[in-house]
Amino acid sequence: MTDQMPLVIFTPSGKRGRFALGTPVLTAARQLGVDLDSVCGGRGICSKCQVSPSYGDFSKHGVRVADDALSAVNAVEERYDRLRGLKPGRRLGCQATIQGDVVIDVPPESQVHKQVVRKEATARAITMDPATRLCLVQVEEPDMHEPSGDFERLQKALSAQWGIDGLTAPLPVLSRLQPILRKGNWQVTVAIHHDHTGAAPRLIDLWPGFHDGALYGLAIDLGSTTIAAHLCDLVNGEVRASAGIMNPQIRFGEDLMSRVSYVMMNPGGDREMTAAVRQALNDLAASLAAEAGIDARTIVEASFVCNPVMHHLLLGIDPVELGQAPFALATSSSLSLDAAELDLTAVNPAARVYILPCIAGHVGADAAAVALSEEPYRSEDLVLIVDVGTNAEILLGNKERVLACSSPTGPAFEGAQISSGQRAAPGAIERVQIDPETKEPRFRVIGCDLWSDDSGFAAATATTGVTGICGSGIIEAVAEMRMAGLVDASGLIGAAGQTGTSRMEPEGRTQSYLLYDGSADGGPRITVTQGDIRAIQLAKSALYAGARLLMDEMGVDKVDRVVLAGAFGAHISPKHAMVLGMIPDAPLDRVMSAGNAAGTGARIALCNLAARTEIEQVVGRIHKVETAVEPRFQEHFIAANALPHATDPFPELAKVVSLPNPSFNTGGDGAAAGRRRRRRG
Amino acid sequence: MTDQMPLVIFTPSGKRGRFALGTPVLTAARQLGVDLDSVCGGRGICSKCQVSPSYGDFSKHGVRVADDALSAVNAVEERYDRLRGLKPGRRLGCQATIQGDVVIDVPPESQVHKQVVRKEATARAITMDPATRLCLVQVEEPDMHEPSGDFERLQKALSAQWGIDGLTAPLPVLSRLQPILRKGNWQVTVAIHHDHTGAAPRLIDLWPGFHDGALYGLAIDLGSTTIAAHLCDLVNGEVRASAGIMNPQIRFGEDLMSRVSYVMMNPGGDREMTAAVRQALNDLAASLAAEAGIDARTIVEASFVCNPVMHHLLLGIDPVELGQAPFALATSSSLSLDAAELDLTAVNPAARVYILPCIAGHVGADAAAVALSEEPYRSEDLVLIVDVGTNAEILLGNKERVLACSSPTGPAFEGAQISSGQRAAPGAIERVQIDPETKEPRFRVIGCDLWSDDSGFAAATATTGVTGICGSGIIEAVAEMRMAGLVDASGLIGAAGQTGTSRMEPEGRTQSYLLYDGSADGGPRITVTQGDIRAIQLAKSALYAGARLLMDEMGVDKVDRVVLAGAFGAHISPKHAMVLGMIPDAPLDRVMSAGNAAGTGARIALCNLAARTEIEQVVGRIHKVETAVEPRFQEHFIAANALPHATDPFPELAKVVSLPNPSFNTGGDGAAAGRRRRRRG
Repeated sequence: MTDQMPLVIFTPSGKRGRFALGTPVLTAARQLGVDLDSVCGGRGICSKCQVSPSYGDFSKHGVRVADDALSAVNAVEERYDRLRGLKPGRRLGCQATIQGDVVIDVPPESQVHKQVVRKEATARAITMDPATRLCLVQVEEPDMHEPSGDFERLQKALSAQWGIDGLTAPLPVLSRLQPILRKGNWQVTVAIHHDHTGAAPRLIDLWPGFHDGALYGLAIDLGSTTIAAHLCDLVNGEVRASAGIMNPQIRFGEDLMSRVSYVMMNPGGDREMTAAVRQALNDLAASLAAEAGIDARTIVEASFVCNPVMHHLLLGIDPVELGQAPFALATSSSLSLDAAELDLTAVNPAARVYILPCIAGHVGADAAAVALSEEPYRSEDLVLIVDVGTNAEILLGNKERVLACSSPTGPAFEGAQISSGQRAAPGAIERVQIDPETKEPRFRVIGCDLWSDDSGFAAATATTGVTGICGSGIIEAVAEMRMAGLVDASGLIGAAGQTGTSRMEPEGRTQSYLLYDGSADGGPRITVTQGDIRAIQLAKSALYAGARLLMDEMGVDKVDRVVLAGAFGAHISPKHAMVLGMIPDAPLDRVMSAGNAAGTGARIALCNLAARTEIEQVVGRIHKVETAVEPRFQEHFIAANALPHATDPFPELAKVVSLPNPSFNTGGDGAAAGRRRRRRG
Repeated sequence: MTDQMPLVIFTPSGKRGRFALGTPVLTAARQLGVDLDSVCGGRGICSKCQVSPSYGDFSKHGVRVADDALSAVNAVEERYDRLRGLKPGRRLGCQATIQGDVVIDVPPESQVHKQVVRKEATARAITMDPATRLCLVQVEEPDMHEPSGDFERLQKALSAQWGIDGLTAPLPVLSRLQPILRKGNWQVTVAIHHDHTGAAPRLIDLWPGFHDGALYGLAIDLGSTTIAAHLCDLVNGEVRASAGIMNPQIRFGEDLMSRVSYVMMNPGGDREMTAAVRQALNDLAASLAAEAGIDARTIVEASFVCNPVMHHLLLGIDPVELGQAPFALATSSSLSLDAAELDLTAVNPAARVYILPCIAGHVGADAAAVALSEEPYRSEDLVLIVDVGTNAEILLGNKERVLACSSPTGPAFEGAQISSGQRAAPGAIERVQIDPETKEPRFRVIGCDLWSDDSGFAAATATTGVTGICGSGIIEAVAEMRMAGLVDASGLIGAAGQTGTSRMEPEGRTQSYLLYDGSADGGPRITVTQGDIRAIQLAKSALYAGARLLMDEMGVDKVDRVVLAGAFGAHISPKHAMVLGMIPDAPLDRVMSAGNAAGTGARIALCNLAARTEIEQVVGRIHKVETAVEPRFQEHFIAANALPHATDPFPELAKVVSLPNPSFNTGGDGAAAGRRRRRRG
């Protein structure tokens, strides 16, 4: 026997209410605000509203669910099951009606706001809430006695059936409306873009009748050297394809300042670079679509993160002001644009673009994206986040306050300006161990998995096919040399007279360390030279000085946690980074990698509108520290030249590593002197 | 002696209030909501805020104004007077401060919302309230310690100094911001477009420092045959140049339906016609700018009125649905677009376009513009408005209710399909008189002002240089023939045996009337043939039947007032129109011409935002009658074939004209029979 107003309980939300007999499950879910998807608006077509009713005794909910608590499977459900298959126990929420007290589970794939759990365990889940979604609409037919345009009737239907008011349409989309409405017999599936800006919803694309296609977005990390992009499914957040290409602007200058200089020397150079990067973006979009086997027209959105110079050049704005104090951005806010405004033609012609806000003239949307991904502004403990690239973006903070700066580390960490350096590609030495006794090296080489033991490390002599050393490899090599006593705290090779190895070779007035000799097989001889060590010292000093400047501003001497972000950060060994003094001292188990956090931030902003609002608000609260004009930056830079540091203590490091030159890193007298010096600064 | 809070009275508004000593007049005006202009925001640069203080005893206002009621002329005013001249007694409202009770007159040219009184006495004044205006803004300089973009500081300044919030900028305009701000030393004059749609204000253009230039708009009447445009000053509404060109789509079809047919026969034909009209619009804009001697970049807006087929082809929408019932428009609402979306490149690149709403599939934005110009919805009496072109747009109504329809009159009224017809151009006979006794004609010819008497009419024999007869000429010729007894009520020439003139010539089985014989000088012989009369009968029947259908819907047998709109309407003689039965009977002095009312409506919408809101609301209330599927239209059409009409009475016409066939037009038996027939219908 059923109550006249049966009790309906939805899980996992626990939302409950009483509904009249015969109420469709989808209707009940909507009235209770239960997160149950539907594209077709309850017409039994899209199957997005699948639910799993539970039968039996649910004493914890205080109900008993009879076998006939829902209406019997109807013809629409039978047809759907026959044609496309329905999992056992599943019902279409728009067809099944309530006939008695019932407990109904909404499976994850039927939720609009699906959570996408990222593979990297440290990072947060993305809740799907994209700007663009599909809706099936039934439009009234025209009546010459009540004249109104087809578009106005679509607006009306969308308002009545989906609560979406004030639809607008670009002319090229509008021009396709009439034949499509008629072909679909006045049913049409529309892709509607409605973002967080308060702008009117827009019609992006449309298909006759019910269209069961996916929509995609591009999350693009536009770096000075590399443009990396993920093609994401806008319904489930799945990354369908990823690719990275060189930024073609490299031919105008390796780093940011050389590109700004190019513009200053070559009037119109900004337009050349804008055209080059836009063309590359089109190529990238086309190749991602091809790789995923999708129609490029289904790419309806893109999100961008980039540093300020890349940002301006993407937008077609001369970046010259970013090359000189006061480093004024033309615009700092987030931007919502038509893809066409950026000449992005390899996507849907009405696609929209979201560009994250910049924090300051030297701290761009890429830093904002790192903040969005790593959320220092929600952190209970004090976290230092460094995103290492040609420029390092540095964030320090917790839920009380977040500081940011950028620091010009140069390209050494990426293997450039290193004698045997190369990009992280097959053949590159990526990890190094040096035996403190024998001074013999072992290493791992990218793309080579035949090793002598389970550690993944092989003796230099057992290795072939080595072509060079990449950023993480040179960092480990220098750090291992430091630990093995081959390099002293000042960075000098062989100063302590550690010549008890044939691998130490004279090179002019200095020495170098032979890491690998492939010359017998016609391969390279890979050495770590004094010049290599100096290049690493310059880069790491800049990074450390930036972090230290933020710590000064925050009034702290240590941080609780360090996050290494960026593709490079993912491959750095925390211990080696700390031996070099790239980052301040911290418990080694509190130093972690976040992978490509900027790219993750771009994905989050692509998939979740609330995240856009959040980062726009957060950016306004992040306090920017300008390294370029801060006198203490130079002071910190010089002090940070030593390995790990001339004055700052590294007590946490000292717990796990005993460096041959202990007075610099155990918090002893040198450290006390360092603190005194800072107080005078 | 002055009060500490002197009384300030502004005229002509009469607004008054008390202000602290030293308050600038402009500040007082703003606080009271007095309509006092300013572009520079009170910096003594633009001189738009000039006022005329009055001194002496103003007993009607209850104040006495002392000679020192305003501060003495200051250096800024002296400099302005020296450089650019200030009229005697004038003060700059932003410089003069209040020192005592004072009466201040705001002259018309200092009002923001200037009234532009049109030359045509019957029409309403336009109050200037355009979407785009200039503002001088002082922007904060960048500060690297409080980083924000230059654009964000412009937004902030515009909000603080002008109350304009949420400015947006197209990328190409944004890209010009940084050098212009620096060139103007952080002062910039911006052209801001902020319309009635609720969309965010947009930056259209900008200039370093104070820019004292004019902004212009185009009011465009895009007709099937002719594209007419006015170039209007957006500050004072002045028409700086006007031009009309042929619509190049004519090569695809003379009338609307033939263009729709062209699209049906030629896939892609709509795109050809869209490209053709957009190119013509660019040519027209460029030639208007050249004629007025202005930079085309200062054209920042355009308003469009057009029939539905022209509307769709302008927008790039296939008009095929407009050629078949139910005549569904792709979109009926007004549109606010970027000029670039219509490929209008001969104006400012960021210019905006406003397109008036359409009323229905056969009643377009041109009819809406006529309504805006003639305001039937405010009329106390019942007014019939006919806008005669290749299609006639007909409106009937008063402040209670307005009806609209269109009627396919064809091109006969424009001189096409007439044996000696031509466009209204030099050489065309435009007015005709026929002596009822001698049957001899006299006429006026366009471009020929040597006449035998003050009437402006010349005997046919005294005229040279005649090339043909235009629409108004053929209407008068047929009407005069009807009055002279040369044509009977059925439209037959010579049926009553009136052959007492050598001008009546046999032509096959019918006769024709020789209007002009220039053959002796190698000129044309111009006759009115039976075919010409049949063509006019068809056209006028369609017009009358449309009007009559609206009268049926309204439940009336007569109207209080008739307005003839359109370029053609301006040249029609009301008496002759009524003799032909083009329009229903009405007192002749209540039949008037409104000139190009559609074009006027376009100008009003260009210059006044409230008018846009008004017409959008009015269009929703206008009741549309579809002539194409209304059986009574055919019935009315057949009855209207007679001259003036087979059944309807013309008592007002009978007061001034005695037609040889009186039973048809005096309200006698025939009229009674007509009313009975309608009752059965």
